[in-house]
Amino acid sequence: MLQSFTASTRPDQGPPRLLALRRELTARGLDGFIVPRADAHQGEYVSPRDERLAWLTGFTGSAGFCIVLAQVAGVFIDGRYRVQVRGQIDLGVFTPVNWPDTSPADWLRAQAPEAAVIGFDPWLHTPDEITRLRAGLEGSAITLTPLTDNPVDAIWPDQPAPPRGKVRAHPLALAGRSSGEKRRALAADLRAQGVSAVALTLPDSISWLLNIRGSDIARNPVVQAFALLHDDARLDLFIDRAKLGDLALDGDVTLHAPEGYEAALRAQNGRVQFDPATAPLAVAGALTQGAPGADPCLMPKACKTAAELEGMRAAHRRDGAAMVEFLAWYDSAPLGDLTEIDIARKLEDMRHATGELLDLSFETISSTGPNAAIVHYRVTGESNRRLRDGDLFLLDSGGQYPDGTTDITRTLPVGTVAPERRAAYTRVLQGMIAMSRARFPHGVAGAHLDALARYPLWLAGQDYDHGTGHGVGAALSVHEGPVRLSRLSTLPLAEGMILSNEPGYYREGEFGIRIENLIAVRPAPDMGEGRAMLEFETLTLAPIDTRLIEPALLSPLETTWLNAYHARVLAEIGPLVADNTRIWLARACAPL
Amino acid sequence: MLQSFTASTRPDQGPPRLLALRRELTARGLDGFIVPRADAHQGEYVSPRDERLAWLTGFTGSAGFCIVLAQVAGVFIDGRYRVQVRGQIDLGVFTPVNWPDTSPADWLRAQAPEAAVIGFDPWLHTPDEITRLRAGLEGSAITLTPLTDNPVDAIWPDQPAPPRGKVRAHPLALAGRSSGEKRRALAADLRAQGVSAVALTLPDSISWLLNIRGSDIARNPVVQAFALLHDDARLDLFIDRAKLGDLALDGDVTLHAPEGYEAALRAQNGRVQFDPATAPLAVAGALTQGAPGADPCLMPKACKTAAELEGMRAAHRRDGAAMVEFLAWYDSAPLGDLTEIDIARKLEDMRHATGELLDLSFETISSTGPNAAIVHYRVTGESNRRLRDGDLFLLDSGGQYPDGTTDITRTLPVGTVAPERRAAYTRVLQGMIAMSRARFPHGVAGAHLDALARYPLWLAGQDYDHGTGHGVGAALSVHEGPVRLSRLSTLPLAEGMILSNEPGYYREGEFGIRIENLIAVRPAPDMGEGRAMLEFETLTLAPIDTRLIEPALLSPLETTWLNAYHARVLAEIGPLVADNTRIWLARACAPL
Repeated sequence: MLQSFTASTRPDQGPPRLLALRRELTARGLDGFIVPRADAHQGEYVSPRDERLAWLTGFTGSAGFCIVLAQVAGVFIDGRYRVQVRGQIDLGVFTPVNWPDTSPADWLRAQAPEAAVIGFDPWLHTPDEITRLRAGLEGSAITLTPLTDNPVDAIWPDQPAPPRGKVRAHPLALAGRSSGEKRRALAADLRAQGVSAVALTLPDSISWLLNIRGSDIARNPVVQAFALLHDDARLDLFIDRAKLGDLALDGDVTLHAPEGYEAALRAQNGRVQFDPATAPLAVAGALTQGAPGADPCLMPKACKTAAELEGMRAAHRRDGAAMVEFLAWYDSAPLGDLTEIDIARKLEDMRHATGELLDLSFETISSTGPNAAIVHYRVTGESNRRLRDGDLFLLDSGGQYPDGTTDITRTLPVGTVAPERRAAYTRVLQGMIAMSRARFPHGVAGAHLDALARYPLWLAGQDYDHGTGHGVGAALSVHEGPVRLSRLSTLPLAEGMILSNEPGYYREGEFGIRIENLIAVRPAPDMGEGRAMLEFETLTLAPIDTRLIEPALLSPLETTWLNAYHARVLAEIGPLVADNTRIWLARACAPL
Repeated sequence: MLQSFTASTRPDQGPPRLLALRRELTARGLDGFIVPRADAHQGEYVSPRDERLAWLTGFTGSAGFCIVLAQVAGVFIDGRYRVQVRGQIDLGVFTPVNWPDTSPADWLRAQAPEAAVIGFDPWLHTPDEITRLRAGLEGSAITLTPLTDNPVDAIWPDQPAPPRGKVRAHPLALAGRSSGEKRRALAADLRAQGVSAVALTLPDSISWLLNIRGSDIARNPVVQAFALLHDDARLDLFIDRAKLGDLALDGDVTLHAPEGYEAALRAQNGRVQFDPATAPLAVAGALTQGAPGADPCLMPKACKTAAELEGMRAAHRRDGAAMVEFLAWYDSAPLGDLTEIDIARKLEDMRHATGELLDLSFETISSTGPNAAIVHYRVTGESNRRLRDGDLFLLDSGGQYPDGTTDITRTLPVGTVAPERRAAYTRVLQGMIAMSRARFPHGVAGAHLDALARYPLWLAGQDYDHGTGHGVGAALSVHEGPVRLSRLSTLPLAEGMILSNEPGYYREGEFGIRIENLIAVRPAPDMGEGRAMLEFETLTLAPIDTRLIEPALLSPLETTWLNAYHARVLAEIGPLVADNTRIWLARACAPL
């Protein structure tokens, strides 16, 4: 089983560890220290070695940080984790702080001594983060000091070693462009900008650039490493050599130990680019002529090659077949006997049965009834619910395969579902269809399209408090920047970008609905209007439950889209599933 | 007749005037001079005195500028005026320049002598404009010099005097807030920002703030004046006193001659706010402690009071009745005998017949066949076309009334219209309806909604190259900032804002379609979801031609909206029109 349903920390571990950390800080003459849930690579998942926040406080959420002072230790958590944090930390010694409502700077002004010296680990914070924090502290006597070694590491006796996940080649047939070709293109851009090198610190950028994949952290098949790409396309790679085994990287890549990265940065003479939004502050600090600029891999990585798109299509057919086997099982199962964990396990089994599953692409959200209203719900033994008649069951999951990454959400009925819930489901589906059908000119961004998915809900006074979609990597991170379908995203959509399309509706304490397909941006057929337009190709192939639809609410064009989608699912997935499943699939894909 | 259909300048006036201006520049030691189509108030329309660009070059468009050098004089015009300019200027001495494709800075770098000194009138350019121009010239030896008097004025023997339009009170019953109340609210904001006064230079801001209206320039019932609002709510008004007649402004307003504005600004001791996007550079230059900031009247002026909305509704019923009389006449007229000018005249007659028309709110766009594909078309004797069977006739017009401002576009059939044109008309209508029906949460801006109006066109590979809507003043300018329905507008929509909703479709050389209603933002009814939402109230009341609709393309909800709209038009406008017109109206409003 890839997913575990237990929380690995206990609140009672917190107080002695906090005491030890405070002694360490006192010994170093510090009034406080910031413990983020971050590693040097700013990933969404971190390795066990970097779970300093969970080790210290007990809080296991995917975002947050703790500021430890002599008298108080604030655990900063966002809206998703306000409930969870209270069950995971010892409230006698840790204080939950609602963030970003309360900024760390304002909290420090209120809680820290007047001229407090607050330490931080410059490998775990970006320049942008520290700039914001310093700006917030302006006018106060509080100072922030970067430390050369992390005090948590000093008091963590059994801290795990850095991950040593095996590195494998990502074949050219799946990548579509050789590493040399990618590096030469980026190098030409560097020369054009008068920059001699760029410091790369994001594992998915480095994995993409070198056409390699790894297993250093959960859910993301990336390689943790640092790199320095020069304007002549040579690349210095700072990596634990053991991870490479006998894998040969091409001749223009020179290997170094990760510990040598800082010294190598210091030794650079020319202007070296770094990304102030994602690089560690330590990287910026080591450069004598640092040139801030976005990670140059972000855009070419976002615009997938034909080979990457073909791999994603293959992965979605395979994953779709597993989903269909699962959905057919669900329809025959004694639902009232099942729990959220049972279902998450069953689905994982179905994906394993493909023989190609490398990992989940994120922790499966298996949620029924009121749990489904918690947008970032993750089932544990404590929260696990049994399915009940009338529930909506929300299942958001995905797999990592050698050729692609999937992310799919379906909402399923449990017994007889009330008309009001079916109406909300239909509106969510209408929004999902509107986005799927969209065509738009070049220059249009997620900010401009997001409302298409909300319009049917808005008309009923309803909405959802998350973006409509996120970028998705090709056999890489399931949450991939920089493109999004969100009112906040003004980056124009471009050919080859892959996004999720996942409107939802949530009623706290009652139910949750979300329907999600992945979509890829492609050129629209020429309509003879002299305007080049883009449209979406739907990658995800699995039936959308039609029993929850109120057909009268669908417009003819929406029904047409849905029927065409189901016809395609039946044609492409039908041949890949068991005979009995195919009979079920034909019924699930029957036109409305 | 308010509208004239002749162009008032001739190309042959240009060369001698250009010669005189060059002599004047040489005498002043200047290598060049910029002649914008602008006055000190940055309005869309300028008074005859400020028509320097038209006087010098012959070009009468509503935007553009000329840069005069010793050897070359470039007339900068945007895409709307590329054809028109060639008929209005002497191409032997003036050179059309495509703008913004070619920036004035790049043009100057290419055309001006190496260390050229280029003069400009600091009353006719904003600080933002000059900052952009200076940034573009950085690294060159060209310098920009503000002049104390305008060289065009010096060589214009019969330059008209500044306008002396009579000022009238805009009654409290229509404004909804007294001038004192408005001034006190703004003054409180100034105090909160530590600003002692704000320089106001926009006529519609000053007219709104003082609850006055005027007749200094065409189409906009504003008063040209300058003002200085102090943080204690006192206001210094710099205005030609003769314009006020015996109108008494309230006691906290002190009158001064306009010529004293600059000296008054120089005499201010505290921080004085000015709007770098709209104030003349001369204003910024006169302030010892200038504080850049948006004109504080913009937002409260954009969010109409209940009284202003009531006035706008009354104006739209009156204007709707005139439109209905016109549309009924159109349906009985021998169309093949009529020209665009005939129709513009007839419509103006209908509006005059209300007895309340003060002015048009802009030059009527009366256009048939290929002329309708020119988005900013204005008919003249030369361009005037006769209506022909199969044409689409596009009529975009509006009136200024004491209580409100209207702006309406209808597209009408001439004889038998081809199915392809009817399909495009239906898609434009679908977009217009989608926007009309929209509901949305607070925080949503025009950038987020604009796509709703384009989606049906996009699906067919079609689009339009203008925004979906502009802000509209209440008995003020028909084009009013800062709010827009456009991908460029991130200002959240707020209760009381009035916008146009005018998607279109244009096929160059063939036909044009636009359908436009004005809409006002209001709170949506509570749907029991705990989310406060906004929606649009439609202000414009006149039938939308149903003969051009392909009914099969409309969804049931679109048809429902259209039928409800027509039922409302019949109920509200029916009682206001002649008996025969009412019979026609009932047929025009018959449900689909």
